[in-house]
Amino acid sequence: MRFLASAFLFAITVSPLATLAADPTMQITPPAPKISVEERHAELAKRRAAVASKMDDKSVLVLFSAEPKLYTNDVDYVFRQENNLYYLTGLKQEDATLVITKDGAKVTETIFVPKRVPLREAWEGRMYSNEDVTRISGITSIVDAAERDKYLEALKGKRDWASADGKISLMSNPASLYLLLPNTSENGRKDDIGLREYKQENEFNVGFDTAVKNARPIFDALRQIKSPYELKLLQHAIDITTEAQMRSMAIVGRAEWEYQVHAEVEYTFRRRNADFWGYPSIVGCGANATTLHYVESQSPIVKGQLLLMDVGAEYEHYTADVTRTYPVNGKFTKEQAEIYQIVYNAQEAVAKATKPGVTMQQLGVIARNTIAEGLQKIGLVTDYKPATKPEDEFVPRSREVSNWFIHGLGHWLGMNVHDVGAYGPPLKAGMVFTNEPGIYIREDAFAKIPDTAEGNAFKTKVKAAYEKYMNIGVRIEDDLLVTENGVVWMTGKLPRSIADIEAFMAKGPKEIPYSAKNAPTGGMLVAATH
Amino acid sequence: MRFLASAFLFAITVSPLATLAADPTMQITPPAPKISVEERHAELAKRRAAVASKMDDKSVLVLFSAEPKLYTNDVDYVFRQENNLYYLTGLKQEDATLVITKDGAKVTETIFVPKRVPLREAWEGRMYSNEDVTRISGITSIVDAAERDKYLEALKGKRDWASADGKISLMSNPASLYLLLPNTSENGRKDDIGLREYKQENEFNVGFDTAVKNARPIFDALRQIKSPYELKLLQHAIDITTEAQMRSMAIVGRAEWEYQVHAEVEYTFRRRNADFWGYPSIVGCGANATTLHYVESQSPIVKGQLLLMDVGAEYEHYTADVTRTYPVNGKFTKEQAEIYQIVYNAQEAVAKATKPGVTMQQLGVIARNTIAEGLQKIGLVTDYKPATKPEDEFVPRSREVSNWFIHGLGHWLGMNVHDVGAYGPPLKAGMVFTNEPGIYIREDAFAKIPDTAEGNAFKTKVKAAYEKYMNIGVRIEDDLLVTENGVVWMTGKLPRSIADIEAFMAKGPKEIPYSAKNAPTGGMLVAATH
Repeated sequence: MRFLASAFLFAITVSPLATLAADPTMQITPPAPKISVEERHAELAKRRAAVASKMDDKSVLVLFSAEPKLYTNDVDYVFRQENNLYYLTGLKQEDATLVITKDGAKVTETIFVPKRVPLREAWEGRMYSNEDVTRISGITSIVDAAERDKYLEALKGKRDWASADGKISLMSNPASLYLLLPNTSENGRKDDIGLREYKQENEFNVGFDTAVKNARPIFDALRQIKSPYELKLLQHAIDITTEAQMRSMAIVGRAEWEYQVHAEVEYTFRRRNADFWGYPSIVGCGANATTLHYVESQSPIVKGQLLLMDVGAEYEHYTADVTRTYPVNGKFTKEQAEIYQIVYNAQEAVAKATKPGVTMQQLGVIARNTIAEGLQKIGLVTDYKPATKPEDEFVPRSREVSNWFIHGLGHWLGMNVHDVGAYGPPLKAGMVFTNEPGIYIREDAFAKIPDTAEGNAFKTKVKAAYEKYMNIGVRIEDDLLVTENGVVWMTGKLPRSIADIEAFMAKGPKEIPYSAKNAPTGGMLVAATH
Repeated sequence: MRFLASAFLFAITVSPLATLAADPTMQITPPAPKISVEERHAELAKRRAAVASKMDDKSVLVLFSAEPKLYTNDVDYVFRQENNLYYLTGLKQEDATLVITKDGAKVTETIFVPKRVPLREAWEGRMYSNEDVTRISGITSIVDAAERDKYLEALKGKRDWASADGKISLMSNPASLYLLLPNTSENGRKDDIGLREYKQENEFNVGFDTAVKNARPIFDALRQIKSPYELKLLQHAIDITTEAQMRSMAIVGRAEWEYQVHAEVEYTFRRRNADFWGYPSIVGCGANATTLHYVESQSPIVKGQLLLMDVGAEYEHYTADVTRTYPVNGKFTKEQAEIYQIVYNAQEAVAKATKPGVTMQQLGVIARNTIAEGLQKIGLVTDYKPATKPEDEFVPRSREVSNWFIHGLGHWLGMNVHDVGAYGPPLKAGMVFTNEPGIYIREDAFAKIPDTAEGNAFKTKVKAAYEKYMNIGVRIEDDLLVTENGVVWMTGKLPRSIADIEAFMAKGPKEIPYSAKNAPTGGMLVAATH
């Protein structure tokens, strides 16, 4: 959907590819990355310093914790911290608030966190002590959360503020105040997604005569380039997901319902100590594979059909996003293989073109052209025009392809599955994106084509092929790290080519034995997570 | 915490018990209950008629769908419908609204539901057609959700309203309007839990000069008595949970971390096609068992210690709630067995006393007295006084017991894990509650006892026993259905006595083979769930 027709860059040199050879044996998740306290403190301090360096002089940044989300009555969903607060502090507990102040060269960092309450701990588990907060975040200036609202009021009233014990005072008359806020369009409309996520900040943002600025551009720019530290966590989430995908391929031949395969995936996530998922798992057999976000898992597993699995473990807030589409019985039919190979070719073309300087839009054009070329050969596209000069690489050369490749090429990946970052600017080393072309021969595809001369002509021409491939849906999705020279396939250990998938599945149905080596916990987890 | 000192009833006759004998073999979940369309329609129509019969004349009831809950950015948690709307319609899709009007003998039932949008279906899956809504709910009067707000405005303005096609008109000037609302205390304060759950209703409830009434008492009274139809669903959730508990007992000897056992539980939930859980799973080894709502699952599994598992699958909105505490190595130590047996005895005493007419408070007193009696024998309580006359059964006879039995006896169970219903009125047949006494020798227990003469005297007297049993936590929780004559243990198939648990675990570590018979889907699930 993010497909743009314009092309600005003409980088067609083939990039060196760092593709890992697929290993046909089961990939058990390696041990979780070991991260020392010192390493974590250094990383978090560096991030906070980077944020502070982008703040105006005489300014204050306030980051709230996420609010707990209601499941039903007095039960909440499992708490997940707001990403940017986590990015700067590592704190996973509710009701923590970070305040950074900047006054010339002087930067202060303060956490408001609730005091431990023994009765509450007997019910809900250990709460952070001040020592815990310091051990996790490296921040030493800590104030009882009960005092937070007084500070927030002082900010509004521009009144001096100090903690009750007089030990900590914080700037309360800044020239500007940074909050995470919904983005505002030119006509003043706030974006719905941001409004939902930053509701409490938006409600707090009333009655200031201080200049209030949206902190998100600062975080978005930083978070889009992943540090080696972040890449270790993301790679672990991807490794867990790789095992989950392979486990599902191993048992699918004996499964009767989609939810049974779904169970194997999420079993692996929990078994390998993922936070859990980064988004609800998509497990669709046959025609269900043609629905992009099919999450019900309520249909039978049918021999002879394809199963599409779009799943991602989340580990320490970083989410994988990996799709494989494979035959239930381990062998692609001719038609399935034809569609699959076209999608595969598009992925390859995208990876080959990926390097700093290229844009996501350009990569999207490459994917669409590659798919259009393949679909023209099998009669599902009639308007594809081959490239005649190098510049054509980034020029869309089929409109009809959008009837079958119904979404964009991919998105940034990180603490959100659709991670922060604009899609216009050129790629830089350290960015991670999903390379996920797809072809969906939806049964209702014809119903969506307008009843015009052009539309009807198209339908007439492709009708036979449409019926031949009907209800086949294929998406292949890999997570790619942009490097100085090209790209690393972070999902490289997971079989992807037709040959590799068939070879892996031919080894026969098998289960991972319970004794399979487990991934021990990393060094980041702490007693209290809420 | 719901322990009351007063006792009103003196029903001490021993009730006939319908306890199922525990079977030491693995309990694979039986097939999901088959419910025909006719049976569902009849049940839902009966519920709607029961609600309408409680509504005032010339009144309107409006039930909104739950709002989707944000996970992060554009990802939501898995959608769960508002219970009362589901109770009357079976609809699981967002944005459905039910309106019931009552005018003398004339009752109308109308659903507002979004029109199907092909492009949205390609992304998010099949949406309900009008035929789907009728097939699921039995309701035939259906209006496009885009017209809903106009009707709601008409209600506020007391203006006539008819659907755009003129086919459906709805009362818009009722004498009273029913909404689900937060409860309001005598001083006008709205309850926090209700305010979170019924936020949109509370915000809508502004600007009416019509009398607005809280619909919750009508639903609470109906839902507290479970129909045979509801009991089938609840029993299935309990059966899935029974299998999950047994599976965890079977593999715990080989597990190294709590999260691995946690994984087995939720694997079983998904494998048996549960909605998922009714509340986050609690899996705590050793001292973690003394934290009531420990959900991190991040500690090692240690041989020689107890593992406490408080877990509940949810099936078609009905949640189980089952706790077992068992030794990692399959054999209770002497101290563990002593504590366990006291909790077991309390459960038995409660079940024996359960029958229509008794109150939950009275059952709570029985549990506390039984536990106090047991703890006095092992030196953790010193103030227990044996009963001297029959009326003493419902009189609390120890205060000190509250240092170790730190919560109430249990709660109503149904579509919420803490289900609707007051705790004062006597039990009736068809009610379901949890019988879940517990003893927790928390390391910080002494720190919470006041530094008074009485407190210090207690500490001195029990110090030796406190140190002996320190960090043992035992809770046993079963789900009991009140019948005309006594009680049915809905969790009766799951080993509970020391002998049964040790016998089951002695059969040695084992896994459920993949080929174990699966529970097929029931008849209620439909393509679209959001």
